[in-house]
Amino acid sequence: MRVLVPFDAIDPKRRLAPVFDAEERRAFAAAMLADVLDALDTHDPVILSNAPVDAAAPVTVDRQPLTEAVNAELAAETPTAVVMADLPLVTGDAVARLFEPDADVVVAPGLGGGTNALVARDPSFRTDYHGASVRDHRRAARDIGASLASVDSFRLAVDADEPADLVEVLLHGEGTAAAWLRDRGGRLETTGGRARFRLEKPGRDT
Amino acid sequence: MRVLVPFDAIDPKRRLAPVFDAEERRAFAAAMLADVLDALDTHDPVILSNAPVDAAAPVTVDRQPLTEAVNAELAAETPTAVVMADLPLVTGDAVARLFEPDADVVVAPGLGGGTNALVARDPSFRTDYHGASVRDHRRAARDIGASLASVDSFRLAVDADEPADLVEVLLHGEGTAAAWLRDRGGRLETTGGRARFRLEKPGRDT
Repeated sequence: MRVLVPFDAIDPKRRLAPVFDAEERRAFAAAMLADVLDALDTHDPVILSNAPVDAAAPVTVDRQPLTEAVNAELAAETPTAVVMADLPLVTGDAVARLFEPDADVVVAPGLGGGTNALVARDPSFRTDYHGASVRDHRRAARDIGASLASVDSFRLAVDADEPADLVEVLLHGEGTAAAWLRDRGGRLETTGGRARFRLEKPGRDT
Repeated sequence: MRVLVPFDAIDPKRRLAPVFDAEERRAFAAAMLADVLDALDTHDPVILSNAPVDAAAPVTVDRQPLTEAVNAELAAETPTAVVMADLPLVTGDAVARLFEPDADVVVAPGLGGGTNALVARDPSFRTDYHGASVRDHRRAARDIGASLASVDSFRLAVDADEPADLVEVLLHGEGTAAAWLRDRGGRLETTGGRARFRLEKPGRDT
């Protein structure tokens, strides 16, 4: 099955602006992409990017917004899997579970209603990544009479969108993104309730 | 295997105070407990509570803090599983995956470093639920030479601690807690980025 990895090469991870500047966010996005490509290794992934990018996989450049770019690919060929590039916890095992269910449409929900990975075997299925997309994708599958399965995976559910997500990378990440984050001074703060993310910047805070 | 469900019957879900008052939080906690007991149905769960509680399972009352109460039980009997009472997405399938790995210690991480479920087969394993407990539990397992497995489950990872978590209940919950939340006016707000939780209170906001 063809596997696409949509990637924003221009201005990725805007919601991490409270902790990282634009150049850092690009470096972190590239590190996460490397981890995702690694987890997809045996599946020959293709990056679907809005600009040329230097990475360990072939790149298709499509300057349309995410939804339109993915739908153009789904119209051209199914089955197709779409795995987001910002999943710093993803592993080969988690990817294997995405391909397990024998359903026309398979979705792996992300935190807050996103669709972090999906498999479309029905040629008429189209995506809509705006809003609570996982709910809309389930509805879209039902509307075309496609069978539907959900993958129950924490590693697929965590996308690094907001500073709080970086806690999960520090706790459970084992790849390039986790190493980059630790190297940049990313630390856990554990003072009651959930752990929080903080940056330790030698020469600045200390 | 014995299955314990720790439950705070006195002042549960304090971090939901921005959206629910004390009585509502107790009702929501009871609804989540009902869902967890339902998912654990075939495993004859026992509630480990800090006060008497009326629920569909036997109750052991222990007024000690969570860590001490659980450790007293682990000292008395292993194997023992400990499944938190505030997992509104948990299903029988997710529970089955907790019991799958044949390891001395099995952990299911929660968002922000918690340990939402664990299995202790090694009689010398003890818990410590303070701070990033999943990290500490992994370390504790290594320290006693116990084999360790992690369960990759979104449904086990989501505990309803903070208002943002209620989004996941509305999106993926199918039980008593989700119904309670909808009935109380819990709604999704989808305006870019992740969906947010809001309350629709007839007669107040409308």
